[in-house]
Amino acid sequence: MTSTTAATLAEIRSVMAELPGPNTVAGDAAASREAVLTKPPGALGRLEELTHWLCLWQGRHPPRLDRPRVAVFAGNHGVAARGVSAYPAEVTKQMVANFIAGGAAVNQLCLNASAELRVYEMDLDHPTDDFSAGPAMSEEDCAKGFAYGMMAAETGLDLICLGEMGIANTTSAAALCCGLFGGSAADWVGPGTGVVGEALARKIAVVDEALALHRAALTDPFEVMRRLGGRELAAIAGAVIAARLAHVPVVLDGFASTAAAALLQAAMPGALDHCLIAHCSAEPGHRRLAERLGKKPLLDLGMRLGEASGAALAIPVLRAAIACHNGMASFAEAGVSDKSG
Amino acid sequence: MTSTTAATLAEIRSVMAELPGPNTVAGDAAASREAVLTKPPGALGRLEELTHWLCLWQGRHPPRLDRPRVAVFAGNHGVAARGVSAYPAEVTKQMVANFIAGGAAVNQLCLNASAELRVYEMDLDHPTDDFSAGPAMSEEDCAKGFAYGMMAAETGLDLICLGEMGIANTTSAAALCCGLFGGSAADWVGPGTGVVGEALARKIAVVDEALALHRAALTDPFEVMRRLGGRELAAIAGAVIAARLAHVPVVLDGFASTAAAALLQAAMPGALDHCLIAHCSAEPGHRRLAERLGKKPLLDLGMRLGEASGAALAIPVLRAAIACHNGMASFAEAGVSDKSG
Repeated sequence: MTSTTAATLAEIRSVMAELPGPNTVAGDAAASREAVLTKPPGALGRLEELTHWLCLWQGRHPPRLDRPRVAVFAGNHGVAARGVSAYPAEVTKQMVANFIAGGAAVNQLCLNASAELRVYEMDLDHPTDDFSAGPAMSEEDCAKGFAYGMMAAETGLDLICLGEMGIANTTSAAALCCGLFGGSAADWVGPGTGVVGEALARKIAVVDEALALHRAALTDPFEVMRRLGGRELAAIAGAVIAARLAHVPVVLDGFASTAAAALLQAAMPGALDHCLIAHCSAEPGHRRLAERLGKKPLLDLGMRLGEASGAALAIPVLRAAIACHNGMASFAEAGVSDKSG
Repeated sequence: MTSTTAATLAEIRSVMAELPGPNTVAGDAAASREAVLTKPPGALGRLEELTHWLCLWQGRHPPRLDRPRVAVFAGNHGVAARGVSAYPAEVTKQMVANFIAGGAAVNQLCLNASAELRVYEMDLDHPTDDFSAGPAMSEEDCAKGFAYGMMAAETGLDLICLGEMGIANTTSAAALCCGLFGGSAADWVGPGTGVVGEALARKIAVVDEALALHRAALTDPFEVMRRLGGRELAAIAGAVIAARLAHVPVVLDGFASTAAAALLQAAMPGALDHCLIAHCSAEPGHRRLAERLGKKPLLDLGMRLGEASGAALAIPVLRAAIACHNGMASFAEAGVSDKSG
């Protein structure tokens, strides 16, 4: 068993070397069209960048957004028992039921964005181990997490938005950031769902304990995930890889989702070039993390819910960008004088 | 004639004293519902503020966004002859034709947002007078501008987005800001559609000339509009007033639209409480102007196109906020444990 699963994790690593690059022919086609549309050059700002990025990573021009998927991965964390969240661990399962019943924020946001929602429940009755006392996952469990996430992104999707649900997973995300980028727990830990005062101090202390325990073994990004991550976070990283292979651009949600994906960038610079960070979460570590990844979040609305809510909200903005790019008239078509006019 | 039109402008001023306040009953109903929805309190950030604001100014709970209108006012400016824009003045009319033909960015953004688009062409063959040589408009012309704009907002709309098209109107907007808030031209003038170098220096010099000419008469905000504004800018201010009277929340677009509305705040604090600034334009004066008005723009996407493009882009975000507020389950409905566990 051990050798098989070790091979599985090794296989996931080895796929990293085969990630396709951007389709610059499609990107150049987008830039050429953008230049003749009836507006001053650059006047649509970030919208122009978005269509260019979509073309590069969908590998086609014009870009399309007819089949966006929102994938929410849910997992439970042993470290929740340390009292690091404002909510009890059973809320993960209750919220999954809420997703399935259609009552959560992400359900409304997917309806609003005409996006398909898929919820991936990951062995919620068996939390990962408490990472302040040992590795969160075995090699097998971690590899399964990646593999499960890889199944969420398939050829034919136009976009995939990745998010999570997991009580205590901002604690895990903060630990991942420490493991990948250095710094102490206080640099990366924030209130999450709303811990303050003593509970926040405990959350920081738990992450510092975990770092002291695992530090010597945190030389490899995949090992950082295995020791400090969680199943839903490994799944997000797996989905990011699979999306790249399938030419599906990725929208990352908030702090936990971005921290999960970050391991790939740490393993291979450029591994997140097909990813957009949807929004800057109110969770303080997210802004710092986005900066470390060299990415500017699209929206900044003080959201901190997770469950792919910010990522789903980016879809209408991406659709707007595509609508302008694909639908606008050129200066010549409209008979509008160009700048030289 | 003069006395009639003076009365008209006086009537517009007098309406300012009758602007209705927020509907706090509707606002309280929004806050009560928000508190029981299945998410940590405040976790939807700005989206929660948006629904509360919509309820206050639509005067009802739940909020709705079935009938949003996007209104684009187009006017020509005599000051364009001073070479302050990167584009020739005939582009205003050409772009109006493009709006009518469906080829502009705002057309695509309205389609994307399922919003009605109305274009208000304001005597384009007769530009306002060059405000660097005298007042831009007579009392009559200015009052007509306000009145024309007031016709754009009627009871029954759920939202109105206000934008403009007018070659040289960022020059006028910068002059309005100087007149309303002080400072020199260099504090408020920016590249607009893309003027740089000598042309930008000329734009600044033209505004400074105008300020020197009009300074003594700029004691009244409506007079600032008459002397330094334009028909489409007066119309935007008129539409803001009419929307308040009709319980229609307003979304302001970029620098020129916000500068136009700003005169109302200068005339009466609180006059823009029913207005949201859709986005922070790349035009540098817009951020400063938003700060002066005590408003935080919703989006920050480096756009600088005008024509209500940023305002139209805010509609899907407002719809998302409403979808969450109106559609989410409560903790009790979903059987999710609240924070108290």
